[in-house]
Amino acid sequence: MKGKPLVSIVSAGLSKFGKLEGFYAREIFAEAAKEAFDRCPNLNPKRDIQALFVGHMGESYEHQGHTGATMADWAGLLYVSATRTEAACASSGAALRAGIYAVLSGLCDVVMVGGVEKMTHRTTPEVTEYLAMASDYPFEQWHGITFPGLFALMATAHMHKYGTTEQHLAMVSVKNHYHGSLNPKAHMQKEITLETALSSRVIAWPLKLFDCSLITDGASCLILTKPENAKKYTDMPVHIIGSGQASDTIGMYERESFTSLAAAKLAARKAYEMANLKPEDVNVAEVHDCFTIAEIIAYEDLGLCKPGEGGHLIEKDETKLGRRIPVNTSGGLKSKGHPVGATGTAQAYEMYLQLTGQAEKRQVKNAEVGLTHNVGGSGATATVHIYRRG
Amino acid sequence: MKGKPLVSIVSAGLSKFGKLEGFYAREIFAEAAKEAFDRCPNLNPKRDIQALFVGHMGESYEHQGHTGATMADWAGLLYVSATRTEAACASSGAALRAGIYAVLSGLCDVVMVGGVEKMTHRTTPEVTEYLAMASDYPFEQWHGITFPGLFALMATAHMHKYGTTEQHLAMVSVKNHYHGSLNPKAHMQKEITLETALSSRVIAWPLKLFDCSLITDGASCLILTKPENAKKYTDMPVHIIGSGQASDTIGMYERESFTSLAAAKLAARKAYEMANLKPEDVNVAEVHDCFTIAEIIAYEDLGLCKPGEGGHLIEKDETKLGRRIPVNTSGGLKSKGHPVGATGTAQAYEMYLQLTGQAEKRQVKNAEVGLTHNVGGSGATATVHIYRRG
Repeated sequence: MKGKPLVSIVSAGLSKFGKLEGFYAREIFAEAAKEAFDRCPNLNPKRDIQALFVGHMGESYEHQGHTGATMADWAGLLYVSATRTEAACASSGAALRAGIYAVLSGLCDVVMVGGVEKMTHRTTPEVTEYLAMASDYPFEQWHGITFPGLFALMATAHMHKYGTTEQHLAMVSVKNHYHGSLNPKAHMQKEITLETALSSRVIAWPLKLFDCSLITDGASCLILTKPENAKKYTDMPVHIIGSGQASDTIGMYERESFTSLAAAKLAARKAYEMANLKPEDVNVAEVHDCFTIAEIIAYEDLGLCKPGEGGHLIEKDETKLGRRIPVNTSGGLKSKGHPVGATGTAQAYEMYLQLTGQAEKRQVKNAEVGLTHNVGGSGATATVHIYRRG
Repeated sequence: MKGKPLVSIVSAGLSKFGKLEGFYAREIFAEAAKEAFDRCPNLNPKRDIQALFVGHMGESYEHQGHTGATMADWAGLLYVSATRTEAACASSGAALRAGIYAVLSGLCDVVMVGGVEKMTHRTTPEVTEYLAMASDYPFEQWHGITFPGLFALMATAHMHKYGTTEQHLAMVSVKNHYHGSLNPKAHMQKEITLETALSSRVIAWPLKLFDCSLITDGASCLILTKPENAKKYTDMPVHIIGSGQASDTIGMYERESFTSLAAAKLAARKAYEMANLKPEDVNVAEVHDCFTIAEIIAYEDLGLCKPGEGGHLIEKDETKLGRRIPVNTSGGLKSKGHPVGATGTAQAYEMYLQLTGQAEKRQVKNAEVGLTHNVGGSGATATVHIYRRG
C-alpha cells in the first residue's frame, strides 16, 4: 500500500503543557479529548469511537496504573475497549501505531489514540528515578546512571567522531526555544540566547541544563478513521501514509553505535518505504529532542542530512522556521515540554495543525508532508510516522 | 466476519509458574518464548515475527519499564516492533487483542503476544501496594482499601442478593486446586479440602486465604498468524473466532452493580456475537478467578448459568473436569498462580493445549470450543476470547 493513506486523522487535541497544579492526569487527558471533540462536531464520541489506546509511561507518578480504562471514562467513553501502551517516552507513538492496526483491522471504524503524563507534582529526584525505569535495571540503573548520563555518552561519542561541539548542542536549544515562544500551549514560551544555553549549569557533560527537555504535565490525542470515512467527520483530514516502529537493546552497553539509533533508522526506513517518499520530500518534522544531542542524531537517522552532519545542519539554521526543513516548530520536548507518555501524539498533533494550516505564528508555508520521530528511553523503541495533507 | 477465524494460534509457550528465584522477568519470558519456538520448527522467529505485544502490569517490581523492547531482545527478536500493553490483570488479554488487530491490519503476517510478571521477590505488603495501582487512587487506594477488600464488597453483595455462601466460595478453591494438581506447571499442585479452605484465615471477610489467588512469577506467549497461513507453521492450529474487550469505571464506587461486571458482560456479548456462538456451545473455559467470588460472577457474566446461580453451579460440581463445562482446568489464578501481566495469554495457552489435545491429565475430551475471560482490577477492563479447534 505504498504512498496510499493508511488511516486519516480527523481531529486532534492537546492540553496546555506546563505545570498543571491541582489536576490529575485524567483531568488533563479530558482537556485534550474535549478539544478533539470540539473540533469535530460531526463525531459522536460515545457512539462512534470503538477503541482507545493511551500512551502512559509511569504509574509511579500518581500511584495509578490501569490508565486505559481511567482515561476512557474521563473522556466520556465509558465501556469502550481501552488499553494503555507503554514504550517509555515513545508510549504514545506506540499508541498511534496500535490505533493504526485497529483501524486497518476492519474491527474498528473510529479509534482514539493519545497519551498523558502528570509529573510536576513530584520532586526532580523522584522524576529522575521514575524515568530511569526506561533504562536497563541490572546494568544501567543499578550503577547509578540516569538519562542525562546516557545521552551524554552519545554526545561525547558524536563530538569525538564528527567534531560536533557544545555550541551545536546549544543552537538546538536556542532554535527550539524560539519556536516554543510562538506556541501558546508550550511550557516555556521564551526565547533564549546561545550564551544562556552555554552558561547554564552542567548536568552531565557536555549536556547542560538547557540541553535537557522539561518535566511537564500534559496530554494529547488524535481521532483516527479509515480514509474513505474521513470526509464524514471533517473537510480537512490529515492522512498517515507511513508508519514504522522498531526496537533495540534496552541497555546502551550492547549497542553497535552510540552516534546513531538503530531502531530510529529502521523505523524511518519502513515509514519512508511505506509512504514511497524520501527525506527530501518532508516539509516539516517533529523529532524527539529529549536532549539536544538527540535532535542532532535524529537529523542524521531520518536522512535530513548525512551521518555526522547534524551539527552543520543546525549551524546553518536549516531546521528553523522559514528555512529548508523546519524541525520542532512546536518548540519540541525542549521548550513545549515532555510529558513523556503524551509526547508521541503531541508531535502528531503539531503535524495535524501544520498540515491543516492551523499552526498560526509557527505555520510552515505550503506544508504538504510531515514526519514525527518518537524515541523511547535511550533508543530501545522508536516510532516514525509520515503524514500528508488531505 | 461471524464465526470465521479472525487469526490462528500456531504455537504457544508458558514458563513454569511459581516462585522463580534468581530470575529477572526477561529470563522468564525467554523461557515461555523458547517453548513456543520449540513447538513450531517451521517458524523462523527473527525472520517471521513482525510485532510483539507484551502484557506487563507493574514496573515497580523490578524497577523496570520499557518491557516491550526488553522482552523482544531476550526472546531473540531484536529490532522487532515491540510494545507493552497494560490493563492491570488483563494486560495480556489486551496484548492478545492488540495482536489480533495487528494481524488483521495486513501490516503483519506473524506476531507474538504474551505477558510476564516477576512478583515473588517482593514482600506481600509491597505486592499489595503495587497491585493497588490498578484501583482508583483518589477514592479507593488513598482510603486504604486493597483488592481483597474490593472483591469482598462484591462477595457480600452477591451473598446478600442471591444467597451465595462461604461454602460456595470455598468450593471454587477446592475445584481449582484439584485442577492445579494435574498441571505440572502450576504454582500449587496440591489438592485441598473444603475444611482447609473454610478454616483458613480471613483476609477480608468473607474472603479467606484460600479464596485469594497467588503471588506468582511467570510468563506466557502465543504466536498468531492469518488463518490462511496457519498450515505453513503447524498441522494443529487453534483459531480465534471471537474477541471482545470493554472498560468500566476504574472505581467500584461508580458502578451500577457489585454482583456483575459490566465490562465482562459487554466483552462476552461481543465475542459471542463475533463467533456466532452461544454460551452452551463452549466446552472449556478459563475465567479470571483472582478471588473465588470472581469465578462465580464470571459464570453468570459469561452466561454459563443465570444471574445469581453461580453458587449452585459450583455446588453441583458442573465446572469440574469431566462435567458439563470444565472451568479453569489449568488450576486458574487460584492454583496455577497469577503473575498478573502473564495471566491473559496463560489462559489462552491452556486453550491451545486443550483444543490441540495436549492437556494430558486435565484434557477435556472432544473439546472443540474454548473461552477465556480476563479481568483487570475490579472490572475496569475485561477481555473475552473464543477459540475453535483448527
